[in-house]
Amino acid sequence: MFPGDTDQQEMIPSKKSAVLVDGVVLNGPMTDAKAGEKFVEEACRLIMEEVVLKATDVNEKVCEWKPPEQLKQLLDLEMRDSGEPPHRLLELCRDVIRYSVKTSHPRFFNQLYAGLDYSSLVARFMTEALNPSVYTYEVSPVFLLVEEAVLKKMIEFIGWKEGDGIFNPGGSVSNMYAMNLARYKYRPDIKEKGLFGLPRLILFTSVECHYSMKKAASFLGIGSENVCFVETDGRGKMIPEELEKKVWQARKENGHTCVCGAAPFLVCATSGTTVLGAFDPLDEIADICERHSLWLHVDASWGGSALMSRKHRKLLHGIHRADSVAWNPHKMLMAGIQCCALLVKDNSDLLKKCYSAKASYLFQQDKFYDVSYDTGDKSIQCSRRPDAFKFWMTWKALGTLGLEERVNRALALSRYLVDEIKKREGFKLLMEPEYANICFWYIPPSLREMKEGPEFWAKLNLVAPAIKERMMKKGSLMLGYQPHRGKVNFFRQVVISPQVSREDMDFLLDEIDLLGRDM
Amino acid sequence: MFPGDTDQQEMIPSKKSAVLVDGVVLNGPMTDAKAGEKFVEEACRLIMEEVVLKATDVNEKVCEWKPPEQLKQLLDLEMRDSGEPPHRLLELCRDVIRYSVKTSHPRFFNQLYAGLDYSSLVARFMTEALNPSVYTYEVSPVFLLVEEAVLKKMIEFIGWKEGDGIFNPGGSVSNMYAMNLARYKYRPDIKEKGLFGLPRLILFTSVECHYSMKKAASFLGIGSENVCFVETDGRGKMIPEELEKKVWQARKENGHTCVCGAAPFLVCATSGTTVLGAFDPLDEIADICERHSLWLHVDASWGGSALMSRKHRKLLHGIHRADSVAWNPHKMLMAGIQCCALLVKDNSDLLKKCYSAKASYLFQQDKFYDVSYDTGDKSIQCSRRPDAFKFWMTWKALGTLGLEERVNRALALSRYLVDEIKKREGFKLLMEPEYANICFWYIPPSLREMKEGPEFWAKLNLVAPAIKERMMKKGSLMLGYQPHRGKVNFFRQVVISPQVSREDMDFLLDEIDLLGRDM
Repeated sequence: MFPGDTDQQEMIPSKKSAVLVDGVVLNGPMTDAKAGEKFVEEACRLIMEEVVLKATDVNEKVCEWKPPEQLKQLLDLEMRDSGEPPHRLLELCRDVIRYSVKTSHPRFFNQLYAGLDYSSLVARFMTEALNPSVYTYEVSPVFLLVEEAVLKKMIEFIGWKEGDGIFNPGGSVSNMYAMNLARYKYRPDIKEKGLFGLPRLILFTSVECHYSMKKAASFLGIGSENVCFVETDGRGKMIPEELEKKVWQARKENGHTCVCGAAPFLVCATSGTTVLGAFDPLDEIADICERHSLWLHVDASWGGSALMSRKHRKLLHGIHRADSVAWNPHKMLMAGIQCCALLVKDNSDLLKKCYSAKASYLFQQDKFYDVSYDTGDKSIQCSRRPDAFKFWMTWKALGTLGLEERVNRALALSRYLVDEIKKREGFKLLMEPEYANICFWYIPPSLREMKEGPEFWAKLNLVAPAIKERMMKKGSLMLGYQPHRGKVNFFRQVVISPQVSREDMDFLLDEIDLLGRDM
Repeated sequence: MFPGDTDQQEMIPSKKSAVLVDGVVLNGPMTDAKAGEKFVEEACRLIMEEVVLKATDVNEKVCEWKPPEQLKQLLDLEMRDSGEPPHRLLELCRDVIRYSVKTSHPRFFNQLYAGLDYSSLVARFMTEALNPSVYTYEVSPVFLLVEEAVLKKMIEFIGWKEGDGIFNPGGSVSNMYAMNLARYKYRPDIKEKGLFGLPRLILFTSVECHYSMKKAASFLGIGSENVCFVETDGRGKMIPEELEKKVWQARKENGHTCVCGAAPFLVCATSGTTVLGAFDPLDEIADICERHSLWLHVDASWGGSALMSRKHRKLLHGIHRADSVAWNPHKMLMAGIQCCALLVKDNSDLLKKCYSAKASYLFQQDKFYDVSYDTGDKSIQCSRRPDAFKFWMTWKALGTLGLEERVNRALALSRYLVDEIKKREGFKLLMEPEYANICFWYIPPSLREMKEGPEFWAKLNLVAPAIKERMMKKGSLMLGYQPHRGKVNFFRQVVISPQVSREDMDFLLDEIDLLGRDM
C-alpha cells in the first residue's frame, strides 16, 4: 500500500545521506504519492459510475436490504495490523456503495433530504480535497468570505435589514445556539455564573416541534420539563391563544405556587414541522413575544426554503419579526448533509459576545490583517466545515430563480400527489398539506369495509410497518411511516428532488397498493 | 445550466401528455442529468490536477495571500437571479482553489491537522456522493456498522474491556458531550429538571486545557466561572497535588462560605495540550478522581493518536481509568475534518439514557429489524455525517502498523527539529517537547546581544507576527505563533504529515531565519 516499506527505501536518495531518528528514516516523504493519486483516480471513476451516473436511474434499487448480522458477514469490517492493497480497497468501496441506501435515487422519500445536486456535489468534493477548517481568515480566506456572502443573502430573504449568523452541524444544533443566545440576552451573566440560584427558565414551543427542543433544553441545563408545549390546531399549527395563556400561567407561577419562580424567556415557533409540514402563525406569535418581551426563534430548518419562492413564502409571513431563524439548505435546496445556518437579527455582535472564549493561540489580536474576519469565536466548535460553500455553489449554478423553481416544482408535485390520493380507493389523507409532507394511510382491501373503531385502527396500525418491510426488501422505494399524536401508523411522503417526476408519484401509489393489497 | 427551461421542454415526451400543476410541468425529471454528470467529471479532473496532484509539491505556494477586501474583488461572490453556465462555474472553482490555503501542502504547519491521506480522501468523496445521514440502520446500514467497528477498535486501544461512543463534529463538542454525561451520572434528573435549585456544580481542568472547556461550561448552563483551573508544572502538565487541593477547597466551600454550596463532579485531564503538547499525569489524576468519586474525562483530541504507537502510548499511561475520552483521528491520523469520537467506558447505555428524546417519526419501535442499531438517539444531532467511515478506510489501507509508523515518524521528525533548533544560532526552544508541538522563539540578530529584560521581551514579542506576515505574503510556509501564559509571542511548529521530510524541517528553520534576519 502507499506507505509501504519498500517504497520508502526506494525513495532514500543514497544510504550515506539518510537521517535516522529513533529508527525512523526522515529523508524524503514517506508516502508513495503516485500510487495514492492513482487510487484516488480509480475510486473517482467508481464513484462516478456507481453513484453519480446511477442517481437518476429508476431501474436501480433504492437499497439492497440486508439485516445487520448478515451485512456484517458480507462486509469485511475488521481493521487489522496490516493494510490492504488498493485493488482490495476498491472492492471494499464497491461493497460500501452496493449496500448503502441510495439517498439520491428518485424514489428515496424517507427523510427531509433527497436527490443529487451536481453543483453542490462539486463543492463538496472540493471541500474534501482542500480540507479546510473555518475559524480564521488566514487558514480559510475564501470560505469565510463565502459564508459571509451566503449569510447576507439568507438574511435578505428573511427580510431583515441586517443580521449575523453561523453555519453549524445541524438544525438541532442551530436550535441549541438560539436557545443559548436567547438565554444570554435575558441574563448575560449566565455565561459566567451558570443557572444556579436563578429562577426556573421556561421556553414555549408547539407540541409538533422538532424533538431537538427537548434535547437542547436538557443539554443546556434548562431541563426538558421546562419546555412548555403549546397545543396546535387540527392542521398542526401552534394556537396563539394557547401560547399566550401558557405564558400568563408561567408568569403567575412566578412568586406564587413555585418556590424558585418561573421565568419565560423564549418562544420557538416552527416553520415546517417534521411530520405534518405545518407552519406556525408567525405574526400572531410575534405579537405575543413583543407583549411579553420574549425572544422569538423560528425553527425553519425544513420550511425555510419556501422563502425562495414568491408563490410560497407567505407560509412564513412574519418571519422578519423573529430574533433568530434556523434554516437548513441541505433539505429542500439539496446542498448536501449538512448545510445549516443559524441566523440572528441582532447586529451588535451578540453571537460573538455570547460564544467567544478568546483563545490566544487562534484569535491573536496582533495579526497583520483585519481580524474581524476571524469569525470562529462565534462558534461552539473549534474546527468547523465550510458548509456555506456548497449552498453558494448551488445558488451560483441555479440562480435565485432556479432555486425558486425547485421549491415550486416540489410543491406542485406534492399537490399532484394529494389529488391522486384523493382519487384512489384505499388511500386516505391525514389532512390537507400546506407543504411537501403528504401524510396518508393505505387501507388494504380487507379493512375497507370495516367500521372505523378500535379494531380498525389497531389493524391499520400494522399496515404501514408491514408495507415498509416489503418495500425495503424489494428495494423499490423508501418512504417513512410513524404514529403521531393519537393517529396510528401512517406514511409520510416527502417530495424534494427535481429528479422526481409525476411518474414517480404514480409509481409510489401503485407500488404501495401492490405491496399491501393482500393485507 | 442543468435546470434550464429548454432542457425541460425537450424532456417532455409530447405536449399532449404533459401534466401541469400550478403552472409547473411535472412530467419527467427537471434536471439535465447528462450536463450535470459532465460538469462533475470536469470538476473532478480540476480537483485532481489542482489539489490532489499538487499536494506533495513543495514548489507550489502554501497560500496565495490576499487581504479580505482585495479577495472580495477577485472572487465573484454575489448570488444572482440567474445561474451561471458550467464553464463559468469551473472558473469559480479554479479561483476558490487558487486562493484557498493548501492545508495538504508539506509546509502547512499552522494547525493540528495537515497533509493528504489518499484513502481517507476516497472515503470522503464517497460520503459526499452517497450523502447519508447516520441515525437509523434503514437509511445508513453500512455506515452504522462501520461506526460500531471503529468505536470498538478505539475502545480497545484505550484499554477498556467494553464501552460505547459516538462520532460528532469536533473535539469541542466531544468535551461538551462528556461534561453533560458526567453531570447526568451525578444527577440524572438534571435532564428533565435542569440546574435550578441545585448546588453549584464545579469541574476541574488544567490552565493549559483547550478553550472549549469554558465554552462547554457556558453552553451547558454551568458557567465558565465554575471551571476551576488547576496549575501546571513548567512542562504544562497538571499538578495532581494542586488538583486535590482545589477539590478539597471546593468541598469545603460546600456549606461554609458559599450560600448554595459547591459540588465537584468532573475532572477533565488533557492528553496533548493545544499549545505545548503536554500530557497530564493520568494515573495520579485517576487516583484523585477515585478518592472523590469524580468523573474523569480525558481530552485526548490531539494526543489520543499516540495510543497507536507502542513506543509513545506511555504518554497516556492510565487512560484506561478514564470514564470518557475525546479523540480526533482527523488530527495526527489525518482522517479529514472532522473525525472526532467521544468514547465512554460505561456500558449500561448511559449515552442513550442521557441523550435520548425518542422521536417517534425516526426511532419507531415496531420496525422489522433489530432497532438497537438505530443509534441516532445517542446524539445531540439529528442528521449526522458518517465520520467514522473515513478513519475506517485509512485504517484499512494502512493497517494498525501503518498508523503506528505515521505517529512514530511524526514524533521522530519533531525530535530532529528540536535537535536542529538547539544547534542553530538565533533559535531558542521554549521547552523540551514530549509530543509534536515544538515551541520556539526566533531571535533576530539585532536582539541576540541584548539582555533578557523587559525591553528584550517587548521587542521579541513583535518578531513572530512580523515573520508570519512575511511568510504568508510569500506563501512559502505556514506555522502558528501565540503569546502564552506570560511568554511573549513564539512559534508553534506542529509535525503531522508523512509527506513531510527532514528537508522540510531544515527549510522551516532556514526560511524563518531568511525572513527575520533583518529585524
